[in-house]
Amino acid sequence: MQSFEKNKSAALIKKDKSKKGSIDIEIKPLLGLINSFSFCYTTSSCSGRILLIKKPETKRKCDTEFLFSSQSCTSLDEIKKHLSSLPKEEVWLKQEPFIIHIRCRTIHDAQKLISCCSRAGLKHSGIISAEKKTTLEIIGSGSIETIISKNRKLLPDDSYLKAIIDSANTNMKKNQSKIQNLYKQLASLGVFPSSSLVKKKRRNTSS
Amino acid sequence: MQSFEKNKSAALIKKDKSKKGSIDIEIKPLLGLINSFSFCYTTSSCSGRILLIKKPETKRKCDTEFLFSSQSCTSLDEIKKHLSSLPKEEVWLKQEPFIIHIRCRTIHDAQKLISCCSRAGLKHSGIISAEKKTTLEIIGSGSIETIISKNRKLLPDDSYLKAIIDSANTNMKKNQSKIQNLYKQLASLGVFPSSSLVKKKRRNTSS
Repeated sequence: MQSFEKNKSAALIKKDKSKKGSIDIEIKPLLGLINSFSFCYTTSSCSGRILLIKKPETKRKCDTEFLFSSQSCTSLDEIKKHLSSLPKEEVWLKQEPFIIHIRCRTIHDAQKLISCCSRAGLKHSGIISAEKKTTLEIIGSGSIETIISKNRKLLPDDSYLKAIIDSANTNMKKNQSKIQNLYKQLASLGVFPSSSLVKKKRRNTSS
Repeated sequence: MQSFEKNKSAALIKKDKSKKGSIDIEIKPLLGLINSFSFCYTTSSCSGRILLIKKPETKRKCDTEFLFSSQSCTSLDEIKKHLSSLPKEEVWLKQEPFIIHIRCRTIHDAQKLISCCSRAGLKHSGIISAEKKTTLEIIGSGSIETIISKNRKLLPDDSYLKAIIDSANTNMKKNQSKIQNLYKQLASLGVFPSSSLVKKKRRNTSS
């Protein structure tokens, strides 16, 4: 138990190793709430995003190159800007929902969070490791994933590209609602966030 | 323990309630192997598929209508056949990886399977319920999800539609390899399938 507390303290002060180097603002209140619970802490997260990725010839996921990444809605002009010079490799457009990894003290603690996820409509969330450390993955729903270019050739016309981007933006708004739904479900566990977190949540709700 | 055995026997003889009404042939050897283990049994599965779905106006997932569904590769002609008369609602093309739900006797048993999933590169598999019954969701990787029509209008041209279908077919082949990888990892647990399952596996490997 003591070791769990120590690990939590160490995890919450360590340097952000992500490419972006900071936590997405859209998910900060939710992470704050989760970290206010004594029985768990977050280890990584993404608030949801729209991406243009270059698929590597090596086929290894770690070699994937990001040509564009946005944590909020985007536009045809913005996307086209990043497609002016196309590589030989395949370029894909992806819209991903939010994802959070949470270390829990016990399986029972993880189950409490899973039940909240289920009530918030996040049916694919689950314990991805239950051996030495119990790790829960919470993942949103709704995604887009489609090929955009191959052999330096843009495949969809502007009209279709706009339709994909409109759908991606719609999904990003729904994703934000899912984050709010999960916040409400977790807040109902009975352990309330500090006043600063409530403030942040209110700002998010009204945006 | 006795109750688990009873539930397993009942689950394995009950009628298939899926729309298709039978287990996908591509995943049968893997399910047979899982069900040969005394500590778990499968409750539902899909071997991976290419779909055309009509998104319902109600926005409720259960109201989604399948216009086309294939558990194997498909062609532009086949897909176009199902797009000759377009609805007002959005139609989306989806390629989904395989998914299996497994009831396990204990969390420890579920963890054994998660470790195999991890070695087979299936990082998002996890325990989705750990309360009264321990349920594991194993899910493949690689998917496609994109809009195809809206307000009775087909959005992509034939050339782009073919590029999506080619990518979906490539994913379906990779999906089959992932099923084989998982089979190998699970077989290494030391409980071997019956001779009929080995026979089926060999046939699958050579196809």
